[in-house]
Amino acid sequence: MAKNDQFVSQIADIETDFPQWYTDVVLKTKLVDYGPVKGTMVIRPYGYAIWENIQREMDARFKARGVENAYFPLLIPMSFMTKEAEHVEGFAPEVAVVTHAGGAKLEEPLVVRPTSETIIGHMYGKWVESWRDLPLRLNQWCNVMRWEKTTRPFLRTSEFLWQEGHSVYASGEEAEEETLAMLRLYEEFAKTVLCMPVLTGRKTEKEKFAGAAATYGMEAMMHDGKSLQSGTTHYMGQNFAKAFGVQYTDKDGELKYGYTMSYGVSTRLIGALIMTHGDARGLVLPPPVAPVQVVIVPIAQKKEGVLEACKSLGERLRKTGLRVTIDDSDNSPGWKFNEWEMKGVPLRVELGPRDIENGVLTVFRRDTCEKQELLLSEAENAVASLLGSVCKELYARAEKRMRERIVPANTLSELLSGVEGGFVRAGWCGERACEDKVKEFAQATARVMDETHDMPFCVCCGKKAKHTVFFARAY
Amino acid sequence: MAKNDQFVSQIADIETDFPQWYTDVVLKTKLVDYGPVKGTMVIRPYGYAIWENIQREMDARFKARGVENAYFPLLIPMSFMTKEAEHVEGFAPEVAVVTHAGGAKLEEPLVVRPTSETIIGHMYGKWVESWRDLPLRLNQWCNVMRWEKTTRPFLRTSEFLWQEGHSVYASGEEAEEETLAMLRLYEEFAKTVLCMPVLTGRKTEKEKFAGAAATYGMEAMMHDGKSLQSGTTHYMGQNFAKAFGVQYTDKDGELKYGYTMSYGVSTRLIGALIMTHGDARGLVLPPPVAPVQVVIVPIAQKKEGVLEACKSLGERLRKTGLRVTIDDSDNSPGWKFNEWEMKGVPLRVELGPRDIENGVLTVFRRDTCEKQELLLSEAENAVASLLGSVCKELYARAEKRMRERIVPANTLSELLSGVEGGFVRAGWCGERACEDKVKEFAQATARVMDETHDMPFCVCCGKKAKHTVFFARAY
Repeated sequence: MAKNDQFVSQIADIETDFPQWYTDVVLKTKLVDYGPVKGTMVIRPYGYAIWENIQREMDARFKARGVENAYFPLLIPMSFMTKEAEHVEGFAPEVAVVTHAGGAKLEEPLVVRPTSETIIGHMYGKWVESWRDLPLRLNQWCNVMRWEKTTRPFLRTSEFLWQEGHSVYASGEEAEEETLAMLRLYEEFAKTVLCMPVLTGRKTEKEKFAGAAATYGMEAMMHDGKSLQSGTTHYMGQNFAKAFGVQYTDKDGELKYGYTMSYGVSTRLIGALIMTHGDARGLVLPPPVAPVQVVIVPIAQKKEGVLEACKSLGERLRKTGLRVTIDDSDNSPGWKFNEWEMKGVPLRVELGPRDIENGVLTVFRRDTCEKQELLLSEAENAVASLLGSVCKELYARAEKRMRERIVPANTLSELLSGVEGGFVRAGWCGERACEDKVKEFAQATARVMDETHDMPFCVCCGKKAKHTVFFARAY
Repeated sequence: MAKNDQFVSQIADIETDFPQWYTDVVLKTKLVDYGPVKGTMVIRPYGYAIWENIQREMDARFKARGVENAYFPLLIPMSFMTKEAEHVEGFAPEVAVVTHAGGAKLEEPLVVRPTSETIIGHMYGKWVESWRDLPLRLNQWCNVMRWEKTTRPFLRTSEFLWQEGHSVYASGEEAEEETLAMLRLYEEFAKTVLCMPVLTGRKTEKEKFAGAAATYGMEAMMHDGKSLQSGTTHYMGQNFAKAFGVQYTDKDGELKYGYTMSYGVSTRLIGALIMTHGDARGLVLPPPVAPVQVVIVPIAQKKEGVLEACKSLGERLRKTGLRVTIDDSDNSPGWKFNEWEMKGVPLRVELGPRDIENGVLTVFRRDTCEKQELLLSEAENAVASLLGSVCKELYARAEKRMRERIVPANTLSELLSGVEGGFVRAGWCGERACEDKVKEFAQATARVMDETHDMPFCVCCGKKAKHTVFFARAY
């Protein structure tokens, strides 16, 4: 067995067993481990560093828009959940409940937050008094819990980390506008930070958030053609404002209900980027969130001057703001190559005595798996430029796949064959019965409705289509 | 009533009713609000921004030491808690318990983490195999829950935010060394970031962490002379390693138990800085963590050029990395002065038509409540230098108070009178009975043991003293 195959053989084949490939990759690269309670995960340093990078980039975007961070309690009185009828119906089946605390039974059971519309609605009801208090726009980074039957690390776990933004506006127009603006922010983030193309649009009634007037989603196509919901924004109308008494005195002296909206992305984004960019060798991490952007592997590292040259190059690159690791462990270069490839580091630099003598370095690009030589004297600019090319290539490749695998369908059987390898774009009459039938027939759901509506007939009943919908099988 | 008194009158007198002063200040400056469940708090944007600044500064220190962040599950199987006998005894009475989830009763109740030694011990038991895996040093930023009877925002709430670091070493010496090194890190942080003097030292057996071999604490003297425990580090010996099977194969081929340690600081630090630096007018925030470091108040802001000059100055200061707010609201300058003083902003800049004409600005220092004029052309350097002086002054003032209010005591009655206004330094024989008697007689506890032991006799029984102890009433 060739050296290069030792690592690859640890990972299931990406084409024939994608689910096992995913499990192998997330465990073997030490992104994550299973927690002791069924359905929970431990996010290990290599995975958590990706989350920290996502947080930093996302948080900066929120702050630039004037959104402020806050922190609301984990435990929500059960009675809050029931104040919004659809909300409790949607979330009650999957909440975890604290019934005892401090050695005694609680008078009222407390729900571990599955999302915080209710408790934040309660506080907003207390804080908002005048039109001067609006808009009120807060976000929190926290853990939430939804008891799920089938779980997979990052994709669906009983506890996960996320951000949830919650805003109140004086008018419905402003709240709706913000709902769309946050969707665009998520889309821009997915494209530029995760190098991940997405489809965005409004969700159907069946797929919307429990209690929302309208939900918008961001969907990404994974390696196997299935869809992963990667972020949602919700326009609540006055549903939660009325349930929690979020009222303000307007300029005209009248007492009015506010309009609320919310939005969230979670550690699921880590699953999304793994299944978008990964390949047969393992992870392929987008440079903006990769914990290590450049790994330097010394060649013949015991030879005089090699380690020093590697360290000096590392320092030069770090000074430009890059995250650089020098692997000076005792393992062989081949072993190191394989390990860092599996871990998805965007660029690997090889530097040995001959390179130093010639004033060059060899760079291996994880995305294309191609090597090239750079001048050592121009390393900073050349490496920065290469990382930019990696981002472009990752995006272009995923975008091409998505484009090629979105097919139109006019019949259920066309739809079925379409969702076996990707997304289907089809007309829909707007009836729940047809949506349910698509699910039953093809195990596919309406991911989002396309802004452009040009499919004339419902893929299911053949009647006039009200919407053009992207259908897919989804995680 | 003078304008200046309108705000002050909203806050209870700091000298005669410190507890009410604290409550008034934290609520009225919108640092925090009460949550709907008794004993919980909502951290509002002005308070959360302080926490973000604390996190950023602390996290950078951890990373510089090579500690990595991770995330472990919130819910801990009840059976884990009982694996370390002292640990369960200490924490069982105050845990919150999830008994139902996903619509069904759980087979085993799950504890909402009060601290994570047990679940992290379990994972370390799984991860650690060889001496090559050591030391293993992880930290997590998360929420924890301890059901408390008497609660106060930031000081003691059922849920709070913190960081908890957990490390495994091959030897006890290394683990003990790290326990002391983290204590020194906390002390340096308190001094330079919170401008807060502290006493550090080992805790008595009675006061140590449940399950630790030794606990070290950092104690700060509050405005009223009481002590606030502001950070702790724990050396666990092999207690948790044995309970959770954290074993490694050593270089000699033998299977050995590791030695663990942990350390934590929490949102309590926000309470500590409020009660250390606050004065009759409200908050006095240390510049390194103040959400707003400089507030610019335009004078005669409707006059041509005033707002523009304020904005231009604001931009110049922001470029140096400062957090600057321009208050261009419709309120009067006097109203603004009062509000920002209550909110504890370190420097207030006043800029009006005459100042602009003369090329000067007026700066009000929140710590000394003194004004001075600076040259507009030298604003960047002058403001930076002033902020440095504020830090020095805050530290010096608190340090002087602490020094003056630590008194020696040779008898219980001397101790009693000492702890009524500050800390007492006294000899202690080492017997639990004497420690208990001090508590009963003077409502004071042993905060930490002084490294310097020079008090010859026990303050309680008069026998030979084994330790010199700082006694105080504590939050």
